[in-house]
Order: sequence, then structure tokens, then C-alpha cells
Amino acid sequence: MNIEYLHTMVRVKDLQKSIAFYKLLGLEETRRMDSETGRFTLVFMSPPGQDNAHLELTYNWDGDDLLPSDSRHFGHIAYQVKNIYDTCAYLMDNNVTINRPPRDGRMAFIRSPDNVSIELLQMHSALEPIEPWLSMKNVGKW
Amino acid sequence: MNIEYLHTMVRVKDLQKSIAFYKLLGLEETRRMDSETGRFTLVFMSPPGQDNAHLELTYNWDGDDLLPSDSRHFGHIAYQVKNIYDTCAYLMDNNVTINRPPRDGRMAFIRSPDNVSIELLQMHSALEPIEPWLSMKNVGKW
Repeated sequence: MNIEYLHTMVRVKDLQKSIAFYKLLGLEETRRMDSETGRFTLVFMSPPGQDNAHLELTYNWDGDDLLPSDSRHFGHIAYQVKNIYDTCAYLMDNNVTINRPPRDGRMAFIRSPDNVSIELLQMHSALEPIEPWLSMKNVGKW
Repeated sequence: MNIEYLHTMVRVKDLQKSIAFYKLLGLEETRRMDSETGRFTLVFMSPPGQDNAHLELTYNWDGDDLLPSDSRHFGHIAYQVKNIYDTCAYLMDNNVTINRPPRDGRMAFIRSPDNVSIELLQMHSALEPIEPWLSMKNVGKW
């Protein structure tokens, strides 16, 4: 499998309120990550027994009012790929802009024709950082 | 299982362009539905072998410029539930507005605290239409 769906991410303004809401629906919290440095919390929630259908809640501790208006409330759709360099090269060959190049061998962002943000993640561990990715600049926002 | 993730829906302005884009990523078209009466086409695409991770492309034949600006480009997240009446009643008991009540015993829409549209679908076949749902009015948009 060259590509696998991972999650759909939404940004939330009130984490407790949102967790309560999705619990009402029957989703369970499966994973949580607090980033002191990034000042954000990620909470993954999914239906019981459905381990490959995560909803990722992103909560920014300092709020996210400064985000571009089109990035709320929906965040992105995420897929993991077999080789993120091959995938990005192939996309570029087909005139897709890599908004956030995989400089770290791990993560890239692109936009769909309708401006939907799509996250690409390297399966398993990050690849060795190499050119041309290493020095490739960001384009726009995602 | 009381709830199961179904798909994430995005609206697309150019169906061919979007299908080509998602095919670049490695997704395959798995199902398509044309509605002459509704004047729309739905195309489901998923990673090969990953049958429960559909991206649903909604293409309105007459365009969708008249849609509320906050409904583009992301559409909704969809879950199917064991009993849509029980789910909606439980949500209402917990102060969640049912924007589109399940009058047809089959489909409802709600909003997350951050205004993300969430579709609820009855598992298997539709339930018998009954009150109070049958005469419940829509609230807002979704």
C-alpha cells in the first residue's frame, strides 16, 4: 500500500467542550499529546474498535484567532505514504505545489484544487533529510 | 458498535480536476452516484484496500457559489449510528441542536462546537418515520 488514510483534523477552541461533544457521539479518546514548546494539545478520538478512523482535535493553548480565516474550522485530511520524497516528486511533476516540503523527511502539506489542506506523512520512521527537499522553501499556507 | 466512521466529504468545483488530483495521491474511485434530480454527482475515493476510509467528493452540476462561504471547501465528517433516533434524542438531551432532524429515519446533521458539520446516517436501512422527528423543522444550515 502506497498510501493510507490516517485522520481528519479539526481545530477546536474549547478542548473540554469538544471532547464532551464527540464523546456524546460515542467516540473515545485514544491518544493525547501535549506540546509545551508548541503550546498545543492533540487529542485523537475514534469510534470504539475502529482504530484507523481518527478524528484529530487540535487545541492551541493561546487560541487560534490569528489563523487565516479559511483554515478554521476544518483543518486537513491526512494520509501516510510509503516514500514521501517519491510522492512529492511525483506530485510536483504533475504541477502540484508542495506548500510545505518534506525537509524533515517526514511531513509535507499540499492543497487540493479546492484549497483543502492535505497532510502527507512518511510511513514508519522519517527518511534521511536530503536535497532538494532540505533547502526547499515553504509556499503560501496550508 | 454504536457509531462507525464513514467518510470525510469535500466539495469540488471541477470534478475531473479533483479526481485527477486524488488519483495522483494514489486514491482510487470506488463508487459514483449521479443524481439527475438533485443535479449533483458523488464520487467516493479511497486508498487501495482501505475500504472504510472514503473521501467523498461532492460535485454540484450548477456550481455551488451560492453556498454559505463557511461551507466551502470542507463539507462534513460522516458517521453511521445504530439507531439514529436514539442518537439524536440523546444529543438533544445534552443540548446539541439537531440542525437537520432525521425526518426520513435515515439522515441527520449537527454541528460541532466549532461549527464543523457532522452527518449522522442510520446503519443498514432507514427506520420507520415517526414523531417527533417527522414534523421537526430544520434549524440553521449545516
